[in-house]
Amino acid sequence: MKILVINTGSSSLKYQLFEMGAAKPYPLASGLAERIGDSLGILTHKKDPGEATEKKLVKETPLPDHATALRLAMDLMTGSEAGVIKDASEIAAVGHRVVHGGEHFHDSTLITDSVIEAIKHCVPLAPLHNPPNLTGILTAKAIFESTPQVAVFDTAFHQSMAPEVYLYALPYECYADKGVRRYGFHGTSHWYVAKEAAAFLGKPLAEVNLITLHLGNGSSITAVKNGKSMDTSMGLTPLAGVIMGTRCGDIDPAIIFYLARESGLSTDQLDDMLNKKSGFKGICGSNDLRDIHKRADEGDARSKLALDMFAYRNKKYIGSYMAALGRVDAIVFTAGIGENDTQARAATCAGLENMGVVMDPALNASPERGIRRISAEKSPVAVLVAPTNEELEIANQTLAVLKKKG
Amino acid sequence: MKILVINTGSSSLKYQLFEMGAAKPYPLASGLAERIGDSLGILTHKKDPGEATEKKLVKETPLPDHATALRLAMDLMTGSEAGVIKDASEIAAVGHRVVHGGEHFHDSTLITDSVIEAIKHCVPLAPLHNPPNLTGILTAKAIFESTPQVAVFDTAFHQSMAPEVYLYALPYECYADKGVRRYGFHGTSHWYVAKEAAAFLGKPLAEVNLITLHLGNGSSITAVKNGKSMDTSMGLTPLAGVIMGTRCGDIDPAIIFYLARESGLSTDQLDDMLNKKSGFKGICGSNDLRDIHKRADEGDARSKLALDMFAYRNKKYIGSYMAALGRVDAIVFTAGIGENDTQARAATCAGLENMGVVMDPALNASPERGIRRISAEKSPVAVLVAPTNEELEIANQTLAVLKKKG
Repeated sequence: MKILVINTGSSSLKYQLFEMGAAKPYPLASGLAERIGDSLGILTHKKDPGEATEKKLVKETPLPDHATALRLAMDLMTGSEAGVIKDASEIAAVGHRVVHGGEHFHDSTLITDSVIEAIKHCVPLAPLHNPPNLTGILTAKAIFESTPQVAVFDTAFHQSMAPEVYLYALPYECYADKGVRRYGFHGTSHWYVAKEAAAFLGKPLAEVNLITLHLGNGSSITAVKNGKSMDTSMGLTPLAGVIMGTRCGDIDPAIIFYLARESGLSTDQLDDMLNKKSGFKGICGSNDLRDIHKRADEGDARSKLALDMFAYRNKKYIGSYMAALGRVDAIVFTAGIGENDTQARAATCAGLENMGVVMDPALNASPERGIRRISAEKSPVAVLVAPTNEELEIANQTLAVLKKKG
Repeated sequence: MKILVINTGSSSLKYQLFEMGAAKPYPLASGLAERIGDSLGILTHKKDPGEATEKKLVKETPLPDHATALRLAMDLMTGSEAGVIKDASEIAAVGHRVVHGGEHFHDSTLITDSVIEAIKHCVPLAPLHNPPNLTGILTAKAIFESTPQVAVFDTAFHQSMAPEVYLYALPYECYADKGVRRYGFHGTSHWYVAKEAAAFLGKPLAEVNLITLHLGNGSSITAVKNGKSMDTSMGLTPLAGVIMGTRCGDIDPAIIFYLARESGLSTDQLDDMLNKKSGFKGICGSNDLRDIHKRADEGDARSKLALDMFAYRNKKYIGSYMAALGRVDAIVFTAGIGENDTQARAATCAGLENMGVVMDPALNASPERGIRRISAEKSPVAVLVAPTNEELEIANQTLAVLKKKG
């Protein structure tokens, strides 16, 4: 059985076609269409991505809209040059990444007209993300017609949070009338690595307590209690939490009032600054961690500072979630930085020995891929590196919805 | 030797006159002038406050300015009705509480013209607090002329924080040009109870690691490493951190942008909402903890929620500072809620047993006053209640500055 996964941005469309029938699902093809709406777009398509037989095609052509991009992708997947399926009818279902499901969606769901309405209802909560996600859904519906479509939400995994965790200490009407609460994001990734970690530890997911650190361009940390999200570092929006590439993470909210008063910046300008000019970029001018490590090694104080700040904040989140969870089986690092940055992992976990976290420097430095343990054998809390795969998780959840549908 | 301590608000003036010569300094008189600038002011004065010999005088009279209020207080302290000194010359020094010392002041300091200039320089950082504090200083200078005056800053104790702790992940210019960083507040209280706790534990202050929870109308939590402030929950302003009477504490900063967009509120209106209509008041309509407990016991869900939120956030701060400190000797509760609210202390520490925090419910419920232990004998981390006394600490520091001056 084949499932197509689609992730749509305002001017981009990512896709991956999975063969789900195998013991371990694998991608038959993947691709990225960029500059949709520009005079010249570009679509990069791969057959057998990551395999020895990988074949890459790059098409530069006008992509006036998402529908044109998706049709071109389908042509490549069914064509003679790098085809992997005969025609669209081989695709059993399409799974869509949707950023914000608000409080409507606690789980992945088959897309119906009322689901589309509910996703529209969440647009104010994610004005930059939900509209292109909706475009992707409507485009796929038009092209695939009767093929089942499934929405997989970044927020759904976190709907298990309790009110004392997700509410802010604001006038209650902010929640009741305007939906202001902690939603959390990266749920697909946190859930995927939680399941991977539970399997690696040989424990049922429902009995495992974890702290999962999804550290990438955007970063978030989640406390997983008995397999469910108990708390997470992102909030109403993906701005809150730890330090990110260009996002500031947690700050004193009154800084906004202070800067509005002292610098005369508008809320839109401040929104832009906190989301796009802060984080690593704001502190040291770069948001490429390899670059920052290189400059820190060469003696650049600001780069060193940015790395120290990042690790310190991550460490505090680990401590706070240890307190929230009471008992922790494992700390799990994932995503670009989490999977690849040995130094960031070491700095984040340094000094936590009294809390039961003892790293093994050699294991941490190992170039091994795949899920692995990087803590000392006798560490009461295991520390793991677990590669994430959000696209595969979307395919898995799409399949689960299909099966439930019967 | 007698020291007068003054704490000036925009329309109020609090004072306490200490006898410092005794083995344990004690207040000879204290008072509060309110509604300064209104048509009718009120001054409540106490001789021998808190003692069996306490004598209370209430004067309702116009107090057009702070100078009038301070002169009236001096008349009462030297008068026949409830006098405690012959005249102003008996006062060896005046200690002033100053909220914001920015990065200029790492310690209490003798007030000179250049110190006054530096406090003025910090006004943008504390526009509601530093101006009345300055008024208090100038008023006392005019009345006491050559008597030494000392400024004691709420921020000074926290100047030991490291850059990776006090900096925000904002464009670096926000710090370099506008002074945006974590300053922290309640430093006088955190320092006072840290010294009390070290003495109680029988350890030198310089070797003690503590988490001090100042929980009152305003609340903050500080990580004390080797007797110095390593980190604290308040930030650029006193809005950040845990949940307070009417302040929201930590929130996703993007909530401000969201509410500006969705509710059309101005930054000034939002500033007002987050500072004055949030916290306990925002969640359940009251900011009186005794009232909230009563309502929660009667089944009011919103009051119960507010208490759960408060305890959960405090607990997370404890965990995060345990991670930051690596080793913790004691958790110290102080201020109105910290000293008196058995349930809040129990809820804050619940579930931290794996982190070495084991409460003794009977000790926690004891009505005993004074510094005391409320953790189980075998708890690896001690939990203490330590009454704070900011006025006495200001007097102590004023005396220390006098002595250094020679």
